[in-house]
Amino acid sequence: AFQGKAQISTASLSEDELKSLQVDRNRLMNDIHHTCQWGTGKRWGSQTTETGMSRLALSDTDKQARDWFVQTTKSLGCSVTVDAMGNTFAIRPGRHEAPPTCAGSHLDTQPTGGRYDGILGIHAGIEMLKVLQDHNLETEYPVGVVNWTNEEGARFPISMVASGVWAEEISLERAHNLGEVGGGTATMKSELERIGYLGSVPASHRSMPIAAHFELHIEQGPILEAEKQKIGVVQGVQAYKWFTIDVAGRDAHTGTTPFSARADAMLTAARLIAHSHRVAAKHSALASTGVLTLSPGSVNTIPGNVRFSLDIRSPVDATVEAVEAQLRKDFAAIASGGNADDPSFPQTSKHKLAVDWTTDTTSAAVNFHPDCIAAVRAAAGSVLGDEGLVRDMVSGAGHDSVYASRRCPTSMIFVPCRNGVSHNPEEHTSPEDCAIGAEVLMHSVLRYDQLRAQRERR
Amino acid sequence: AFQGKAQISTASLSEDELKSLQVDRNRLMNDIHHTCQWGTGKRWGSQTTETGMSRLALSDTDKQARDWFVQTTKSLGCSVTVDAMGNTFAIRPGRHEAPPTCAGSHLDTQPTGGRYDGILGIHAGIEMLKVLQDHNLETEYPVGVVNWTNEEGARFPISMVASGVWAEEISLERAHNLGEVGGGTATMKSELERIGYLGSVPASHRSMPIAAHFELHIEQGPILEAEKQKIGVVQGVQAYKWFTIDVAGRDAHTGTTPFSARADAMLTAARLIAHSHRVAAKHSALASTGVLTLSPGSVNTIPGNVRFSLDIRSPVDATVEAVEAQLRKDFAAIASGGNADDPSFPQTSKHKLAVDWTTDTTSAAVNFHPDCIAAVRAAAGSVLGDEGLVRDMVSGAGHDSVYASRRCPTSMIFVPCRNGVSHNPEEHTSPEDCAIGAEVLMHSVLRYDQLRAQRERR
Ligand SMILES: NC(=O)NCCC(=O)O
Ligand SMILES: NC(=O)NCCC(=O)O
Repeated sequence: AFQGKAQISTASLSEDELKSLQVDRNRLMNDIHHTCQWGTGKRWGSQTTETGMSRLALSDTDKQARDWFVQTTKSLGCSVTVDAMGNTFAIRPGRHEAPPTCAGSHLDTQPTGGRYDGILGIHAGIEMLKVLQDHNLETEYPVGVVNWTNEEGARFPISMVASGVWAEEISLERAHNLGEVGGGTATMKSELERIGYLGSVPASHRSMPIAAHFELHIEQGPILEAEKQKIGVVQGVQAYKWFTIDVAGRDAHTGTTPFSARADAMLTAARLIAHSHRVAAKHSALASTGVLTLSPGSVNTIPGNVRFSLDIRSPVDATVEAVEAQLRKDFAAIASGGNADDPSFPQTSKHKLAVDWTTDTTSAAVNFHPDCIAAVRAAAGSVLGDEGLVRDMVSGAGHDSVYASRRCPTSMIFVPCRNGVSHNPEEHTSPEDCAIGAEVLMHSVLRYDQLRAQRERR
Repeated sequence: AFQGKAQISTASLSEDELKSLQVDRNRLMNDIHHTCQWGTGKRWGSQTTETGMSRLALSDTDKQARDWFVQTTKSLGCSVTVDAMGNTFAIRPGRHEAPPTCAGSHLDTQPTGGRYDGILGIHAGIEMLKVLQDHNLETEYPVGVVNWTNEEGARFPISMVASGVWAEEISLERAHNLGEVGGGTATMKSELERIGYLGSVPASHRSMPIAAHFELHIEQGPILEAEKQKIGVVQGVQAYKWFTIDVAGRDAHTGTTPFSARADAMLTAARLIAHSHRVAAKHSALASTGVLTLSPGSVNTIPGNVRFSLDIRSPVDATVEAVEAQLRKDFAAIASGGNADDPSFPQTSKHKLAVDWTTDTTSAAVNFHPDCIAAVRAAAGSVLGDEGLVRDMVSGAGHDSVYASRRCPTSMIFVPCRNGVSHNPEEHTSPEDCAIGAEVLMHSVLRYDQLRAQRERR
């Protein structure tokens, strides 16, 4: 049906011809595993591809994956733009000049992450470009694929920081000056420079406008798998805040310092972490500590200083605020010698410790755009032909779509992942489900492209 | 009174002449601060000497301090022997050949330690050698100063490990293979070799016998200062055990993993640490966590693995055992989803975590030798001339005297330290108190030397 040298306009295809466009599952999976040679992580199975990923943002391996992204999309006819946050926009021209309809996600991973979180979304976008090329198709408006920088927040501790700068919700200066989790000497700017991805185009939606943003992602939770469904039509993203908590007491000898004379920052931090769980559970929210460092770090020295991360989440902004407020009050009381955590906890010391809060990330709850949600729902229906396999859901994780949605119509597509496990080397989504997700992504973009054209004509 | 070229026998001195021997306070303090140029730590005051120390065992700065020790004691007429654990014995000949009466302590420090813990004891021993040389005195039997390796257990996680090998209570192989706290690649043996202190003499009391061991040390606790006393006559050392606790759960996403699906190693570790405090308090024992590491260490990943140190102490061996037994039981129960720690703690997850214990150090309670205790008490009485300034005490910290006491009569001398603070850069003992302690050490050694001669004559 789609032959010849001159490009064929998607507008000239019948609805059935358009619907019949399919992704190539093997090509998609081969591409995914090909780029996972850069930053291969912990092995968990005997198959070649049964390893996790460890590709921290702006590392050498991230640079290798980025180089592949640029080369591949250029060879597929895209023009590629790198902005001042290293966000990379690969744009395939359409029949009319206008901002592109984009598929976006990220190539960076957690230190012990998997092969799908972020990576699937980028590769699905590239598979879309390949399908358009296979069929020599020209869309109404440009379409593109965006690789956003440091989505994970694992190396530089603001997640989605680079889409946040693009949306003008985070300042370029703050982002460029971000240091590494755990205290390395590099900053985002120095690493962008080092790997050659400090672009000259301003990181802003004004310089690089996007008409709409679609993101395919693994669910990272257990619902689709449990309900034997294939596609989640994501309505929005829950709210979250990240904090760094510093507890300051006094270094002292573990053998000669009676409990009454201690200001034990580790004991206090332990109580605060346990208490954050208590309070979050009461509010049906989530609280988690993923990073903790202490000093000086000697078996027989009571730590004088402990620093830990606190991640609070809830679908409702006000609940995140309520948990934070309660914890600010209770942490101060516990550190001052009270036992707001557990009335039976022995009050062994009258020494007061200091607790200091730094807010690192604030991501308010997001509702995605009805047009994009509708495009995804329609695409899922046509790909699967069975409404029972599709459900609406809310994302527990943040995604670049959160910030994209501040500046353009946006929504997301979820596919199941095994046991709901993510941020873990064993993260896994079947080739079949990857392909279904990529096909829904492609059709969502094409439907949105047609919607734009229809509206233009009116 | 003590002039002339030929050495004067201490046996030929009257009791009053012997008692009148004094240390040189300025020389002692100058020597201490001179060697503190190697491994100078955090500054806490404006005076030159108002810094802490950071001289980890077998580091480059430890080598520099050791080289000074060897050179200085040789120049004071000592023969110097280095054993296979880097223990360094500086021995000044006496009138008769026999094992030496020794002053021993250590030159290594905590990562954020002070200028007195260990260092004072070594320098007081050297000051004794200088006083004997000033007065051209010859003791009945050899006297010596011993620098024991890695007393702190801060770099290689068995405290007093090298005196333990000398006492044949710890195997040379286990000690040589000890790796660094926090996971460096060096071992004790590789570092001994690297800095040139892997001696050829076996590390054993059989190869290097000692007749008696005296150790001057800062109290590291608040009692002498609070009671306005000057000398503690140490009766013994409380029992302690060190453990490494490994908690294993599962890495997962903080935003998408409901509490019910988590196996959160950090939350569990926090509860275990808080609980160790509860149980220790109930037994009037001590429990402390000075080291904690987790993986993977990302704000939005629930840690799958946490490792922490646990230090349990009590003057009574059975109490340490009881606290350990209770914690082994309760830790397992908490990690399996129970709430032995706090009946009101929300039981949010049914996932079981694994808790694994490794015993790193066992130091049973010690009673020092009556002869040595008597020598210290008599020396303190003659130096201070006021019994009200002297008290008996038990050491909360371990010392090389614990292992020395297994193989020869041993006791210790404590001097006050400011606010009872130790393992802290601000650790401080006044020059006056350092000198009093050094003088009591010298007279304890000389009294014991005379006691040996008296017994020999009988
Ligand atoms: N999808 C994902 O893991 N994003 C990172 C931001 C977050 O922690 O939710
Ligand atoms: N004195 C001293 O700090 N020794 C180290 C062993 C211990 O922790 O008690």
